Amino acid sequence: MHSIPVRLPDNPYEIIIAAGSLDLLGERIKSLKIGKKILVVSNPQIFAIYGDTVVNSLQNAGFEVFSHAIPAGEDYKHLESIVHLYDTALENYLERSSALLALGGGVIGDMTGFAAATWLRGINFIQLPTSLLAMVDASIGGKTGVNHPKGKNLIGAFYQPKLVYIDPNVLKTLPEREFRAGMAEVIKYGVIWDEELFLGLEAAEKLDNLANITPELLNSIITRSCQAKVDVVTQDEKEAGLRAILNYGHTIGHAIESLTGYTSVNHGEAVAIGMVAAGRLAVELGLWSQAESDRQNRLIEKTNLPTEIPQGLNIEEIIEALKSDKKVKDGTVRFVLPSGIGRAKEGYTISADKIRNLPIHTKF
Amino acid sequence: MHSIPVRLPDNPYEIIIAAGSLDLLGERIKSLKIGKKILVVSNPQIFAIYGDTVVNSLQNAGFEVFSHAIPAGEDYKHLESIVHLYDTALENYLERSSALLALGGGVIGDMTGFAAATWLRGINFIQLPTSLLAMVDASIGGKTGVNHPKGKNLIGAFYQPKLVYIDPNVLKTLPEREFRAGMAEVIKYGVIWDEELFLGLEAAEKLDNLANITPELLNSIITRSCQAKVDVVTQDEKEAGLRAILNYGHTIGHAIESLTGYTSVNHGEAVAIGMVAAGRLAVELGLWSQAESDRQNRLIEKTNLPTEIPQGLNIEEIIEALKSDKKVKDGTVRFVLPSGIGRAKEGYTISADKIRNLPIHTKF
Repeated sequence: MHSIPVRLPDNPYEIIIAAGSLDLLGERIKSLKIGKKILVVSNPQIFAIYGDTVVNSLQNAGFEVFSHAIPAGEDYKHLESIVHLYDTALENYLERSSALLALGGGVIGDMTGFAAATWLRGINFIQLPTSLLAMVDASIGGKTGVNHPKGKNLIGAFYQPKLVYIDPNVLKTLPEREFRAGMAEVIKYGVIWDEELFLGLEAAEKLDNLANITPELLNSIITRSCQAKVDVVTQDEKEAGLRAILNYGHTIGHAIESLTGYTSVNHGEAVAIGMVAAGRLAVELGLWSQAESDRQNRLIEKTNLPTEIPQGLNIEEIIEALKSDKKVKDGTVRFVLPSGIGRAKEGYTISADKIRNLPIHTKF
Repeated sequence: MHSIPVRLPDNPYEIIIAAGSLDLLGERIKSLKIGKKILVVSNPQIFAIYGDTVVNSLQNAGFEVFSHAIPAGEDYKHLESIVHLYDTALENYLERSSALLALGGGVIGDMTGFAAATWLRGINFIQLPTSLLAMVDASIGGKTGVNHPKGKNLIGAFYQPKLVYIDPNVLKTLPEREFRAGMAEVIKYGVIWDEELFLGLEAAEKLDNLANITPELLNSIITRSCQAKVDVVTQDEKEAGLRAILNYGHTIGHAIESLTGYTSVNHGEAVAIGMVAAGRLAVELGLWSQAESDRQNRLIEKTNLPTEIPQGLNIEEIIEALKSDKKVKDGTVRFVLPSGIGRAKEGYTISADKIRNLPIHTKF
């Protein structure tokens, strides 16, 4: 078992990482000294696999457990789903001392957190992430929210969980493509923050699916990635500055996601492509060595993540998307760029022309 | 001009009290170093009176100003009104550095604060309260929210403003009955926290409408009441303990409001009746002297606020209402009770029988 303390002044909490520990969840939550009622929020597919274990563990620890299902996927990440969740909270007389527990990936975590932030002006919130992306990224940092018809995550709040509980074994049921999507963020932490993590990934023969990764490496991947995110967000809880480096690969990444309608290219794939592009920019600007940029790109390839912008998209469309995302200001775009393995900085302003000249359809 | 600093560790801000200073608002906000865009949220009646002055002051200080109207009243205090407000925020491209400014009473303040707490995960929020109740109570303490069809303020967040700006002169257009409602909370602060305030109210000949109150007394009423609330909430931002004393008079008060459908008896009137009842309990329990309880009740009478439970309501209905409000637990109700002028304590558990025997339809 590994425990990472998150030392936020007002809301300190722990991230627990322990393989095969799902049935110990109830006892751990008991130590939080919260109220008796817990509402488990999940989607039907995930609840079918892990619901019984989670509910039993909570009940055995003496909790009164309720559950609420939200259909899977980004399509249901809207305010109406939150209203249904409020109704379930009300029907079961949840109090401020009660808890909402998110059992699922990033979408379930974001929505459950937002409902917890806004029901009775804030009730307890517990994260049990079931995807690699949620484990190493979405469940940490306190960002919660839902989409607005006109844009993703426009409605939301910063709200910290009381506990993030990670059992890496649940990744066994995660689709391979989603596993790789999470690995994109893991590689990101290696590039921007943690050279050790990067070296660990380089030492592995394959990274493309869970079966090719030893339990030790998996544990290190999750633990070190969580620690990287914790390091950054505790230094900048409300996104005033440093936290922006977490957006490495996300500038062009977001543009690709939005241009492909958030379907054919998933978040992790878009970030992978965005990191390759940002790495190229850093090399061109003389900030980063070609050799280190190549090492990053080889990790991305070893994970079987894309390195080139999908055929059919051209750079002008990407620049247009950056504009409507308000990332272009006076003809320049702000980028996070690396200057070494484990080192990156926010705030490089790059001209649209420079982006226009990136060889984005070329293999690195 | 009077400035009250609110020393919350994460969100320090100031309450400015300055009669006739509405046109200086823009310059004051400028000193906050926020973004250029401000969305003024109000109801049509209040905006018709003060909208021009506020908007001009903001524009003269260099802000880009937008406005959004919500129909007046509790009936519109729901999530749908917030969704419309989000739409206006989106249409005008508000950014996280922009601000929502609440120009109105408690309902406008609560809703605008909740929208500010949840748009883009939190944007700047400024309170310009126009009712006495909002000035001395609702605008301070960070409680924001809307009603759920099944209960008041069930959906909400704790979210602090960047500034509370009070111009007592705006009370001149406040209906007298609403003025008296605010005075109930003022008397409450005198009883539970501030003997000086209480003595000041006793020294006045009449308190029933603004015309009978000198500018000096009005200034003292607002300043001392704000200070009382600030003292309490800065010691207990998230309502863990002490803050409960602010509920003096509210236990039976809430029951009366709910039984009369939030219409025939307004919040302040219900609190006034609740304070008389709680005072009686305190005297019966030997906590408070009859003489001091009488002094409280004379202030309430001098304000022309009710002291008796409305005819047509009986005590059994009130006990039932306390039950459904979950204020009855194992046959007892928790009360805030005074033990002197300027001194009260939370957590007295009173049996339903004791409440049953209160002479609630008798003049004190």
